[in-house]
Amino acid sequence: MADDKKLTTRAEDFSAWYNEVVLRAELADYSPVKGSMVIRPNGYGIWERMQRALDDMFKATGHQNAYFPLFIPESFLKKEAQHVEGFAPECAVVTHGGGKELEEPLIVRPTSETIIYHMYAKWVQSYRDLPILMNQWANVVRWEMRTRLFLRTLEFLWQEGHTAHATHDEAEAEALTILKVYRTFAEEWMAMPVLTGLKSDSERFAGALRTYCIEAMMQDRKALQAGTSHNLGQNFAKAFDLKFQTESGEMAHAWNTSWGVSTRLIGGLVMTHGDDNGLVVPPKLAPTEVVIVPIWKADEERVRMTEAAMQLKAELVDWTGRGATDRLRVHVDARQGIKPGAKYYEWELRGVPLRLELGPKDLEKQSVFSARRDTKAKAPIARAGVAESVAKLLETIQHDMFAAAKARREAASVRGVKSYDEFKEIMAGEGAFVYAGWNGDPASEAKVKEETKATIRVIPDAEFRSPTAPSTCLVTGQPAKHEVVWAKAY
Amino acid sequence: MADDKKLTTRAEDFSAWYNEVVLRAELADYSPVKGSMVIRPNGYGIWERMQRALDDMFKATGHQNAYFPLFIPESFLKKEAQHVEGFAPECAVVTHGGGKELEEPLIVRPTSETIIYHMYAKWVQSYRDLPILMNQWANVVRWEMRTRLFLRTLEFLWQEGHTAHATHDEAEAEALTILKVYRTFAEEWMAMPVLTGLKSDSERFAGALRTYCIEAMMQDRKALQAGTSHNLGQNFAKAFDLKFQTESGEMAHAWNTSWGVSTRLIGGLVMTHGDDNGLVVPPKLAPTEVVIVPIWKADEERVRMTEAAMQLKAELVDWTGRGATDRLRVHVDARQGIKPGAKYYEWELRGVPLRLELGPKDLEKQSVFSARRDTKAKAPIARAGVAESVAKLLETIQHDMFAAAKARREAASVRGVKSYDEFKEIMAGEGAFVYAGWNGDPASEAKVKEETKATIRVIPDAEFRSPTAPSTCLVTGQPAKHEVVWAKAY
Repeated sequence: MADDKKLTTRAEDFSAWYNEVVLRAELADYSPVKGSMVIRPNGYGIWERMQRALDDMFKATGHQNAYFPLFIPESFLKKEAQHVEGFAPECAVVTHGGGKELEEPLIVRPTSETIIYHMYAKWVQSYRDLPILMNQWANVVRWEMRTRLFLRTLEFLWQEGHTAHATHDEAEAEALTILKVYRTFAEEWMAMPVLTGLKSDSERFAGALRTYCIEAMMQDRKALQAGTSHNLGQNFAKAFDLKFQTESGEMAHAWNTSWGVSTRLIGGLVMTHGDDNGLVVPPKLAPTEVVIVPIWKADEERVRMTEAAMQLKAELVDWTGRGATDRLRVHVDARQGIKPGAKYYEWELRGVPLRLELGPKDLEKQSVFSARRDTKAKAPIARAGVAESVAKLLETIQHDMFAAAKARREAASVRGVKSYDEFKEIMAGEGAFVYAGWNGDPASEAKVKEETKATIRVIPDAEFRSPTAPSTCLVTGQPAKHEVVWAKAY
Repeated sequence: MADDKKLTTRAEDFSAWYNEVVLRAELADYSPVKGSMVIRPNGYGIWERMQRALDDMFKATGHQNAYFPLFIPESFLKKEAQHVEGFAPECAVVTHGGGKELEEPLIVRPTSETIIYHMYAKWVQSYRDLPILMNQWANVVRWEMRTRLFLRTLEFLWQEGHTAHATHDEAEAEALTILKVYRTFAEEWMAMPVLTGLKSDSERFAGALRTYCIEAMMQDRKALQAGTSHNLGQNFAKAFDLKFQTESGEMAHAWNTSWGVSTRLIGGLVMTHGDDNGLVVPPKLAPTEVVIVPIWKADEERVRMTEAAMQLKAELVDWTGRGATDRLRVHVDARQGIKPGAKYYEWELRGVPLRLELGPKDLEKQSVFSARRDTKAKAPIARAGVAESVAKLLETIQHDMFAAAKARREAASVRGVKSYDEFKEIMAGEGAFVYAGWNGDPASEAKVKEETKATIRVIPDAEFRSPTAPSTCLVTGQPAKHEVVWAKAY
C-alpha cells in the first residue's frame, strides 16, 4: 500500500498535499481517460455512507428514487435557452451507435432537467398528480479542462432531485427543505460547517429562478460550493410543456426544483479535516471507526494478543447501545511482518477516527490504549464498559471536529473591511471569507473577480449575517443592497 | 394512474401482457431515446431492495465496492481479441467533448473488464496484493436493435464484480462462490427457481475461459439468463499486463473472474410471478409488503376507520419480531373518492403481496380481513398478535411463490425426448426446457438454433441432471458428451 515517503505538508503546498492524501489514502486514482477518476474502495466506502445518510433524509422528506436515461437528445438541451448556454460547452457527444452514425447526436447527461421534465410532462395531467418528488443517484459528465480528483472531474457521481409542484410557494418551500437537509448533512455527518444562502445571478444555475447553496471553507481558506438547491420557477415547465389541470379546471404550468450534491463532497471532507499525517474522517462517515492493533513481541504472544483483539472487536460490534442498526464499525489489524508503528502510520493516513492498541500490559491492567485521530490525544480506556466508552469518544470526536472546523472558518472570516484596497490585500495574501456590502450590480462582481479572482460565494441567510448590516458597497462605495461573502473558490 | 382497461391476458399474448404490466404497474416507461427506459419509483424500489440484498451478500463474501470510469479508450477494447469481437458491434461512441473532436474516440462502457484490469495492473505488484475482490454498481450501454423494457435495453443498471487471484483454482472457486450467491438470491429473494451450470462455448462471455450461469424459466416457457459468473482465466491479465511477483519471486499473470446481474432481473420477476391481474412481487423484495385499505360508508366512519388503519399500521411497523432492521413495510391507502374495489384493483396490479381490509365489522370482531396477492386466498386474521400472523403469512407467500414457480418449471420440463423430430414439435409448439444429450459439437448446436430457435441454455450442474444420463446426442445420434438443457430464450 502507501509508500513511506512523508506527505507534503499543507503549509508547503496545499494542493500537492491534497493530491497526495487522496492517492496515498487510496481514496481515488487517475484513470487512463484524462479527467476521469477511479474511486477506490476506501473512497467509495465513504461515499456509500454519505449516500445512505442522504437517502434516508430524502425519503424521510417524502422523496422516492427513480432512474432516467444517461443519453439526452441534443434537441432537448436546446429547449431552455439559458440551460443550453450554460451546459453546451461542457458536453460529451455520442455520434455513433451500433456501428452507425446517429441521425441525432446524443448528449451524455451533464444534468437531467431536460429529460426528466419531458417525462413529467407525460405523467402529469391534473393537480392530483402533483407534487412529484423524485431523486436519482447517477453519474454525469461535464467536459472539464482543468480537473482535480473529486473536486472537478470529467465524470462524477451525484444525486439529483427533481420535483414538480402546483404553486411557486410550494416549490420555494421544497428548495428550502432540501437546503436544510444539505446543511444538516454537512454539519452533522461531515462535521463541516457551512453557510447557507442565495447565489448571486452570475453564479445561479443555468435555467433557475434562484439558486440556494451550502458553502464551506477549506483549510486553505478557499470556498467549496458543497451543494445547491434550485427553484427553477416555470422555466423548464414552459420549455417542456409540463402542464396540469388545476382544481378549478384551468391549465397551468408546474413549478420545478432541482438539487444535488456529488462525490465532490469527499474532496471537501479531505480539505476540511485532513492534517499533515493524512486523512481524518468524521466517525459518522467512517467505513471503519475503530482499528484495533494487537501488540506482541514473541510469537506465542502474537496468537494470544490477536485473539484478545478479536474478542475486543466482538464486544464492540455486539454492543447495541447505539441501536441495533448502528453497530460500531471495527477492524483488527493483525498482519504479521509489519511493525505497530507502520500500522499506526497507515491507519492515520487513511483517517480512521480511533485507534485502540492492545498489548500484554493493557490486558493485565484490563484496559486498552486509545489514540484519537483528530487531536492525537492518547489515553487508556477501562476494559469494563469499553463499548460505551468508545462510542462516547467517537461522539466527542465527531463533535470536536465540527467545532474545530468552525473555529478555523471563523478565524479566517473578516468583517468590517475598510476599503477595496484592504480587500485586495487579503485576497492577494492568505485569503478569507470576507463579509461586505454589495450594490447588487453584476458589473462590480465581475470587476472583483477580474482583479482578485474572488467571487460572491453566497448572499447569506439571516443567521449568518453580521450583527450590523454593511451600509455601503465594498467595491463602488454605493449603498449596499446585500451583505455578501467574498472568497476565492474551488 | 393505471387506466381501467383490462390487461391483455398471458394466454392471449404473453409479450403484450408483459409490456402492459410493466407500464401500468408503473415499473418503467419508454424514454425519448429509442431503446432507453425510465425506471419509475415502483420499479426502482424493487431494484433498491435487490441491490441491498445482493450487496450484503457480496460484502459477506469479502467484496468491496468501487467505481470505475464510464468512458473507455477505444484502444483498450481492442486488446483482448474475443472481447472486442463480442462487444464492438454494440458500442456507443463518444467522438466529441467540450466542443472539440477527440483524438481517440471513447467507448461508453458495455462492460468494464478492460479498464478495470488496466487499473489492477497498476495496483498489483506482489502476491501480497492479491486477491482483489471488487464490485461496482453502474450503468452500461449496449447498442441493441430490438429492445424490451428491462429485458434488453440500450442502457441498463447492473453490478459487475471483478476479481484478481494468484491461481486458477482460486479464480475458479470465486466464480463458483458467486454462482452460489446468485442462486441463493434468485431462489430466496426473488422466489425464482434457477438451474445452475456452465454455458456452451457459443454462449460463453467474450474473453472468458468458462461462463457459469443461473437460468430461469418464464411463464411462456422461454428461458431467461438471469446472471453469469465468468472464469476469465489469464486472458485479460495477459492483454493488460496484470502481473505479480509470486511468493517464490517469479513473475506470473493473475487470474480473473467477472460476474454480473442487472435490472433484467426485474423483467424476470414480472414474467415468473405475474398473473392476469398484474404484477406479483415476492414479499422479501416488495417495497410495500402490506397495504391496508380502510373501509367506510358514511363520513364519520371514514375518520374512525382511517385512524384504526393507521393504528394497525403502527402496530405492524413497531413489531420487531423479524429483527429491528427488518420491519414490516406497510402502506395505508386512505384516499377519498376512490372505492375500495378500485383500490384493490390498483394494488393487485402493482403486486403488493398482502392486502388487509379494515371495516367497522372487522373492528367489532377484533380482526382484519386479509387477501393474498399470489393465491387470492382470503381469510380473517385475529387482531391479537396480528403482526406475527402477518409476518408468518408473508413468509408463507414467499415460500409458496417459489414452490409454484418451481412446479410450473418442472411441468414444462421434458426429459427422454425420443427423436429430433419430437424436439422440433415441442419447440414449434408450447416450448419447454428439454433435457437431452449433446455431442459437444458447436455445429449441432448451430443447426438446432437455425431450425428451431432453441439454444443450449445450460450444461447443468449434477444436482439438475437427469437420474440417468442420456447416452446419445439428440441431434446427431452420436454418443452424448453432456446432458444439456435446450430452450428458446429471451
